Amino acid sequence: MIVRDRPNAFALLITLRGSIVLDILPHMLLVALFAAGLTAAHHYGWLDISSLTVLPITLLGLVLSILLSFRNNASYERWWEARKQWGQMVYEIRSLARASASLLGDGHPARRRILSLVLAHAHALRGQLRGEDVSDTLTTWLSKQELQHVQGLRNGAEGLLQQVGGELGVLYREGAPDSVGLQMLNHHVTALSGIQAACERIAHTPLPFAYTLLVHRTAYIYCYLLPFALVGAVGWATPVCVAVVAYTFFGLDCLAEHLETPFGRDANDLPLDSLCRIHEISVAEALGDIAPPPLQVVNHQLM
Amino acid sequence: MIVRDRPNAFALLITLRGSIVLDILPHMLLVALFAAGLTAAHHYGWLDISSLTVLPITLLGLVLSILLSFRNNASYERWWEARKQWGQMVYEIRSLARASASLLGDGHPARRRILSLVLAHAHALRGQLRGEDVSDTLTTWLSKQELQHVQGLRNGAEGLLQQVGGELGVLYREGAPDSVGLQMLNHHVTALSGIQAACERIAHTPLPFAYTLLVHRTAYIYCYLLPFALVGAVGWATPVCVAVVAYTFFGLDCLAEHLETPFGRDANDLPLDSLCRIHEISVAEALGDIAPPPLQVVNHQLM
Amino acid sequence: MIVRDRPNAFALLITLRGSIVLDILPHMLLVALFAAGLTAAHHYGWLDISSLTVLPITLLGLVLSILLSFRNNASYERWWEARKQWGQMVYEIRSLARASASLLGDGHPARRRILSLVLAHAHALRGQLRGEDVSDTLTTWLSKQELQHVQGLRNGAEGLLQQVGGELGVLYREGAPDSVGLQMLNHHVTALSGIQAACERIAHTPLPFAYTLLVHRTAYIYCYLLPFALVGAVGWATPVCVAVVAYTFFGLDCLAEHLETPFGRDANDLPLDSLCRIHEISVAEALGDIAPPPLQVVNHQLM
Amino acid sequence: MIVRDRPNAFALLITLRGSIVLDILPHMLLVALFAAGLTAAHHYGWLDISSLTVLPITLLGLVLSILLSFRNNASYERWWEARKQWGQMVYEIRSLARASASLLGDGHPARRRILSLVLAHAHALRGQLRGEDVSDTLTTWLSKQELQHVQGLRNGAEGLLQQVGGELGVLYREGAPDSVGLQMLNHHVTALSGIQAACERIAHTPLPFAYTLLVHRTAYIYCYLLPFALVGAVGWATPVCVAVVAYTFFGLDCLAEHLETPFGRDANDLPLDSLCRIHEISVAEALGDIAPPPLQVVNHQLM
Amino acid sequence: MIVRDRPNAFALLITLRGSIVLDILPHMLLVALFAAGLTAAHHYGWLDISSLTVLPITLLGLVLSILLSFRNNASYERWWEARKQWGQMVYEIRSLARASASLLGDGHPARRRILSLVLAHAHALRGQLRGEDVSDTLTTWLSKQELQHVQGLRNGAEGLLQQVGGELGVLYREGAPDSVGLQMLNHHVTALSGIQAACERIAHTPLPFAYTLLVHRTAYIYCYLLPFALVGAVGWATPVCVAVVAYTFFGLDCLAEHLETPFGRDANDLPLDSLCRIHEISVAEALGDIAPPPLQVVNHQLM
Repeated sequence: MIVRDRPNAFALLITLRGSIVLDILPHMLLVALFAAGLTAAHHYGWLDISSLTVLPITLLGLVLSILLSFRNNASYERWWEARKQWGQMVYEIRSLARASASLLGDGHPARRRILSLVLAHAHALRGQLRGEDVSDTLTTWLSKQELQHVQGLRNGAEGLLQQVGGELGVLYREGAPDSVGLQMLNHHVTALSGIQAACERIAHTPLPFAYTLLVHRTAYIYCYLLPFALVGAVGWATPVCVAVVAYTFFGLDCLAEHLETPFGRDANDLPLDSLCRIHEISVAEALGDIAPPPLQVVNHQLM
Repeated sequence: MIVRDRPNAFALLITLRGSIVLDILPHMLLVALFAAGLTAAHHYGWLDISSLTVLPITLLGLVLSILLSFRNNASYERWWEARKQWGQMVYEIRSLARASASLLGDGHPARRRILSLVLAHAHALRGQLRGEDVSDTLTTWLSKQELQHVQGLRNGAEGLLQQVGGELGVLYREGAPDSVGLQMLNHHVTALSGIQAACERIAHTPLPFAYTLLVHRTAYIYCYLLPFALVGAVGWATPVCVAVVAYTFFGLDCLAEHLETPFGRDANDLPLDSLCRIHEISVAEALGDIAPPPLQVVNHQLM
Repeated sequence: MIVRDRPNAFALLITLRGSIVLDILPHMLLVALFAAGLTAAHHYGWLDISSLTVLPITLLGLVLSILLSFRNNASYERWWEARKQWGQMVYEIRSLARASASLLGDGHPARRRILSLVLAHAHALRGQLRGEDVSDTLTTWLSKQELQHVQGLRNGAEGLLQQVGGELGVLYREGAPDSVGLQMLNHHVTALSGIQAACERIAHTPLPFAYTLLVHRTAYIYCYLLPFALVGAVGWATPVCVAVVAYTFFGLDCLAEHLETPFGRDANDLPLDSLCRIHEISVAEALGDIAPPPLQVVNHQLM
Repeated sequence: MIVRDRPNAFALLITLRGSIVLDILPHMLLVALFAAGLTAAHHYGWLDISSLTVLPITLLGLVLSILLSFRNNASYERWWEARKQWGQMVYEIRSLARASASLLGDGHPARRRILSLVLAHAHALRGQLRGEDVSDTLTTWLSKQELQHVQGLRNGAEGLLQQVGGELGVLYREGAPDSVGLQMLNHHVTALSGIQAACERIAHTPLPFAYTLLVHRTAYIYCYLLPFALVGAVGWATPVCVAVVAYTFFGLDCLAEHLETPFGRDANDLPLDSLCRIHEISVAEALGDIAPPPLQVVNHQLM
Repeated sequence: MIVRDRPNAFALLITLRGSIVLDILPHMLLVALFAAGLTAAHHYGWLDISSLTVLPITLLGLVLSILLSFRNNASYERWWEARKQWGQMVYEIRSLARASASLLGDGHPARRRILSLVLAHAHALRGQLRGEDVSDTLTTWLSKQELQHVQGLRNGAEGLLQQVGGELGVLYREGAPDSVGLQMLNHHVTALSGIQAACERIAHTPLPFAYTLLVHRTAYIYCYLLPFALVGAVGWATPVCVAVVAYTFFGLDCLAEHLETPFGRDANDLPLDSLCRIHEISVAEALGDIAPPPLQVVNHQLM
């Protein structure tokens, strides 16, 4: 995630960090090249395209604006929902720390144990969502044996929550907490399970592929029809105009595609490393340990 | 559901898998043919249509864009809500597994029993939503007698949840769990019942039929008026322009119609088979069994 | 509610069932007649309207599209929320049946009693929302004395839920269920009360009347200004064009008005009879009774 | 709130009740007068404005439509949320009546006491939101001493809920209800507190003032630029066209402003008096008292 | 936050308080200057730009309107969600005051202690969100030692909630409240934790930076292309027209940017000081203390 103060107007125009310009540059150049060729053909009379009007472009624009607007909203909502889920994780972990202190007392050994498992869950989930190996991090919170068990599961993160359930069960059968207390603590573990399921949903269910096809095709037809409509009116300025319009269309399309999958390490993805560190700080302060520092923004980006 | 990496730009233009092109091809051809005929009539002077302007087209476009935009949003929201419901089912089942371990202990025989019933419920619901016979699958989780009972009911899936309620009642009256524990376990069963009711709502309540009529008619009038407006300006390019515009309009309409009923086996429908397998994996790992592998994407599609 | 497979393209163009064409036909004819008169006046030189342009039409279109789009979304959301409330009723009743079996046992006489009251509530609410007398149906679920009591109340449906509360109170004071069990059962009754209040809100609070006025007036001015803008460009085709544009505008307006009040018996209203039957099936199967068949679609409509 | 059957088309065009025409009439007349002056200046050659085109108008229209659409949606959502909060109050009060009967028994004196306080809270909240003195009404539900105490508080409505909390505390410490029962009853009082906080939020937090400025200014510039663009095309029809366009723009703006603050006594405001009467009916029927009649629509308006 | 009665139409046009005019004035002047230069160049024939049309402007307008509309909605939703969270805090604190009275009795010393901690939490959160030092205010509610402890934490506000959890734990282990009562009280503390996490999410997660870039660049290109399209049609009126259009575009952009970060002290930011005072009033009246007066609007602004 890019985190920076709003730069001045000029810097905003030329900055590349976090921009999607580089991703769409080839497409822009290609369509500009095509427009340049067509303009030349028109200028030197190789081709008679004087009979074409702007009308078909306008009509395509109607559906294209519906599609781009829809896709942009849907992708952003996925991104924002993912962020909300990880934000909820922040307070579920804090509340688990607080409720367990109320019920069991600050110094109960099971409390540290449960909170370690919950932190390991956050890291494991981060690893599963990003397709990264987080074993090194997990060793901080799990014994070697536990780590092996988790690595043997198809869904390691869920396995860690089941272990939390096991720990709570042992405490409950020992008599404290009572069933209402178990209900309170279990409530937060269930919420963590819900957050995981929501993240898995976002990570594994893309927008229907037919949208990608329809947007892509309509935008392509639009941009390649555009020079025909422009050349008669703006002459040699056609390639520039086409490139600018293509920038906005492909740019919006590309941005929507980035936000659709918010769990990677791209410039506009969510800073899961940093959020996991926030969890670690919460737990450390709740347990009275020394909290690690928050992750720093490096080169305007938070990982 | 189509699951694939974003293909390159050229492949995006020609791929048919997951596209709705084939569905709307006849309509596109028909309207293009009509446009070709009209262009010929205009060209050879059989018909004088020089007096027509683009104005009525533009005015119709206003309402058409409202309708297409609305219908697309409403259909996508149905699709996405259906996906959310099945995603919630993932964590309700996992949480039931975890809470039952906490309350009853890992090895309590009723736990395996209840989780089997819940898996059978997921499969039975899948069968009811897709109108498929899932008896073969249900035999894995139910005894022959139970299967017969369920098949005799009007709503077999609901019947399985009532059976879970019965099992919980027996445990409760035997003294464990206590009423708070029953409340905890019952909470998840109630949620499964809510998921079923939501899916039934989406499956059995289409968008008001009057929308289908209004969209369909407006789009038809629009596309068949279009050649009149275009022929004077673009001449023989009219049929191609009309076909392209018709592609985007009928395409968006057709896509919305597909997403409106998300429980089938079409390319853009939800992968219920795969989701049921995820439930099976969750339950197997929670019970310490060997988990089956996730379903594989075949030909870019997850069933 | 209209329930039918999507008819073929031709049938979609001519079907009247579920269409709002008949409702708006008089308005369409009137405006077309006006346009025809104006065209004649223009054609025979009785009136000089050559100085008018399409500009005012376009400017009005801006606000009109905002209004129509808003009104359509707001009305559909009301319709869909109403459907969701009745869909929630499905699972609240099923869950009440299941939870009461867990807590009280399958055969407890109070269970049948409570579920009968809940079914009577569904029917009574249906009657109140539709302004129909449902006494005949209620006699199935209530004793004569109870029916008289309910009929004497200003809000009979709510009175039935209060009776459920009374039954639960008797059970609670007899010792089973305990307070947690009462909380579980009462939760579903509270949800039914919430559903009723939401339905009453939708039924009794129309969209602010000023919207109806503003949409109506803008659409009228728009349609009656339209011939002035069209007649110079399309000549004798003016009445047809005006009728088509009026069809889409008045059609969208009329559809929004229908969906605004979703509880009637019109083609696009919700099938409350059928939903009540689904409740009856749920309860019958939960009690082990023989379930009645679902209501059939008659003439493509579910009541 | 205006409550009436949809009048016929002609009545819709001329009705003033509930319309915002009178509010915006001065603005409409002023801009029409300006347009008339400009048209005269153009007609008699006092001013040469032939060089102006419609383009700036169209460009302003882009932002203006975004702003008007946004403001309209945001205001309506505030209005509808306010209505939902008062609709939730309906069922929270009914549910409190029902749950207290289950837990304490129909005839427990504290029940009537608590429900009276809750009714007083509804009236007091109504008074606070509308800035009206409701002491006369409160004397029906409160003793003179209680009334004085409430009037001495900065937030009397909240004070009444605190009193309910006190009553519940006394009952709890007397042994019935137990803590679970207290949780059930307290749940509804908490919900009432949430409703109050939501209403206070809507009443005291207007849309950001910068929106009002931006909408107002853009609409003014738009309407006063309009005659320059129209005069060349429509001549002496300019004032009428400008007045009609101004009607729709100022009308939508004025309507949004009305809905933004839904708690007053204007034609489009919420009928809080009537809703309080519904609460009174609910409580009376729950207590077995004779319920007062619902408030009547007077002159098409419900207060 | 600006709080004032709607001023009259003229005052609305010239007021600067709460307006974003001053922020965007440099940009407006720059683009107007550029337009003036271009107009001069065109007028005196230094530059031939007669071949340019309005078409590229219109095409860019399509994407620009999608982007501005999206960004405005997303920013407003963040602002409104932040307001809702602080509104929820109002009733969570009131409900904690009420529930603690019910459970522990009005005069229990722990009650005052817990409510003081909760007020300190509200102030500390305000300080963290605004990046201000609120130690002076905290000394009212915390002992010196507590204040030092809180200041030593990375997340002082969360630390105060953990202290509330500790206090509740002591009470619970002393026997009153029982576990259900603890659940009731803890519920509100958990909600406060959720509010804090939501506010931190809004404060620390800006809209994806790529949007800022795309909106900014498209709006700049648009405004600097505009004079080319206008100069042929409106001549020397070009700079004024460009300035007006730039005002609406940059104004909407700037407003969205302000609302994106709602916790500052700007004219359109949320009045956190005032909301904290409302909490203080609630607690004071619940404890029977003399409540401080609400904060006053100063110069039309509430802090």
